[in-house]
Amino acid sequence: MAQENIKDSEVDIVIGALQSDLTEFFNAWRPIFSRFHLIIVKDPDLKEELVIPKGFDHHVYTKSDIDRVVGSSTSLFFSGYSCRYFGYLVSRKKYIISIDDDCLPARDSNGNLVDAVGQHIINLTTPATPFFFNTLYDPYCEGVDFVRGYPFSLRSGVNCALSCGLWLNLADYDAPTQALKPEHRNSHYVDAVMTVPTRALLPVSGINIAFNREVVGPALFPGLRLAREGKLRWETIEDIWCGMCAKVVCDHLGLGVKSGLPYVWRKEKGNPIESLKKEWEGVKLMEEIVPFFQSVRLPRTAATTEDCLLEISKALKEQLKNSDPLFARAAEAMQEWVKIWKAAGTGPSAPGV
Amino acid sequence: MAQENIKDSEVDIVIGALQSDLTEFFNAWRPIFSRFHLIIVKDPDLKEELVIPKGFDHHVYTKSDIDRVVGSSTSLFFSGYSCRYFGYLVSRKKYIISIDDDCLPARDSNGNLVDAVGQHIINLTTPATPFFFNTLYDPYCEGVDFVRGYPFSLRSGVNCALSCGLWLNLADYDAPTQALKPEHRNSHYVDAVMTVPTRALLPVSGINIAFNREVVGPALFPGLRLAREGKLRWETIEDIWCGMCAKVVCDHLGLGVKSGLPYVWRKEKGNPIESLKKEWEGVKLMEEIVPFFQSVRLPRTAATTEDCLLEISKALKEQLKNSDPLFARAAEAMQEWVKIWKAAGTGPSAPGV
Repeated sequence: MAQENIKDSEVDIVIGALQSDLTEFFNAWRPIFSRFHLIIVKDPDLKEELVIPKGFDHHVYTKSDIDRVVGSSTSLFFSGYSCRYFGYLVSRKKYIISIDDDCLPARDSNGNLVDAVGQHIINLTTPATPFFFNTLYDPYCEGVDFVRGYPFSLRSGVNCALSCGLWLNLADYDAPTQALKPEHRNSHYVDAVMTVPTRALLPVSGINIAFNREVVGPALFPGLRLAREGKLRWETIEDIWCGMCAKVVCDHLGLGVKSGLPYVWRKEKGNPIESLKKEWEGVKLMEEIVPFFQSVRLPRTAATTEDCLLEISKALKEQLKNSDPLFARAAEAMQEWVKIWKAAGTGPSAPGV
Repeated sequence: MAQENIKDSEVDIVIGALQSDLTEFFNAWRPIFSRFHLIIVKDPDLKEELVIPKGFDHHVYTKSDIDRVVGSSTSLFFSGYSCRYFGYLVSRKKYIISIDDDCLPARDSNGNLVDAVGQHIINLTTPATPFFFNTLYDPYCEGVDFVRGYPFSLRSGVNCALSCGLWLNLADYDAPTQALKPEHRNSHYVDAVMTVPTRALLPVSGINIAFNREVVGPALFPGLRLAREGKLRWETIEDIWCGMCAKVVCDHLGLGVKSGLPYVWRKEKGNPIESLKKEWEGVKLMEEIVPFFQSVRLPRTAATTEDCLLEISKALKEQLKNSDPLFARAAEAMQEWVKIWKAAGTGPSAPGV
């Protein structure tokens, strides 16, 4: 596939608002975000009015929009970080870029502001190479190429559906790791993008991601909510869960997933010691989640992301039915989400716009 | 597994000498190499005497040593870059580090001399994590850790058997790529090491590698020689070939392969336009080699690297017997090499020492 040039109007930036005062956030992102349409989804638990500085082309969605479109689902949750998934649902754009509201633009090793949106778009519009590992990282980045021995037949690559960016300052550790190393900050800027090889699973962090909504959009959904989940990343695994779904779907459909650049700067937030009790639930669940996704096989007839999700849901019900009831609810959530996605997608334009 | 401390006496540095005057090479590497024992293997085609500066604990092996130990093999070749494999055979150390004689120590982004040996040893003596992808790169590097969502049961990792370093200045491209971009030089220093996921194949470049000889040593052998192979890396694929064997063996035995740091500085050499005719042979062969290694499955009974090589050799004979006769010869080479490796390994010390 050839590199595409895309229009700004093909991109929605989706921000889940967990805090009411977004002044610092949007002002910091102004040079990067101002060309694009923004979808802001207010955490349904947040009571205060949102404060958004002037000068952005944006639309705010709130609890009443969610209730109207999604209805009274018992398995889909949109509180906390999960509110952003509603933005994915109502967008009609080809590309979604989503960044947590506690992140600011990062600077690269030379002190230049990182254009996270531009880098995500490069990642998504240049091919991914999941079928053979290039030791020189993403051969479609500027100044990089395929190393000797890379088969020519695999060099054209496949469509990249998901781009996972990284974080400086506060890295995305779980609560135990963060609690063990409370002073640790990530200042290690690795100037590389790479395709995650096919059938290698990764824990996708939702902090700083972008995806091709048309091909893999339905796989990004709020399916797994921990019982005592809070409003801190290290207390959640909803993004890890749907990231595993997305990777399995991409592998099955022959799509690529990239990881690496762009970085964002994550601000300090929360107390990992306080979160430790909650987090262990997620840590324990991962020991069942990973083997499930490593072994799940989708039938050839599953030709779309929606098909794949329904198949994963079926396998989940069969294989983990005697395990934590969260899995049965996640399976329900997948089925409900596919229904809602299909219904929402048939409307003439995004609801509420 | 825990990180090990290893002694200098457990390491051999193996240098294949394709040029006679090694003064600049060894003087540049003196601060890094001088603590270790060096095995220097002279390209059997090289007529001139080797010039090696004083102050190194080294032993030189020549054509007569090769003839004595290997005898009159018709499928194993030790000329050109392949001479170094003889050094792997006669070493008795646990770790081998091997760097091409046209490479000098690199400098990192801060201008500091890169200790390639030290970094390779770190890579080999810290665990590899092939069963799940860590978006933050090698979690065993300083200042790095496992990202949220990484299963705790997979964090202890597995033994790392092979460490593949990279190159600044002249990157390791094939002749067509180098010919298309004659002015291109690699100045992109990516400060990262990563485990190549299980079942993802990579084209291992022999320019700058290290490995645990005790576990994976026999997989590094001169098995595939192109008919019109010359003395330039881009005219050869012997390292790519045995790298694929090594990766398949590591995947089967549950061992890890890392790629990334350390970098070396590759000097200008040769004319890629002149090499173009020769190189296409290798490029074409890769189209058969990659599907073969992607599909080969080893039986559970193959419990050592030697066993695995014999199984790969058997599969190769069966599957590619009607293809290029080079493959039949490579299969023979694998069987011969295993025999020679076992015989050489039973002696009380390295022959010729």
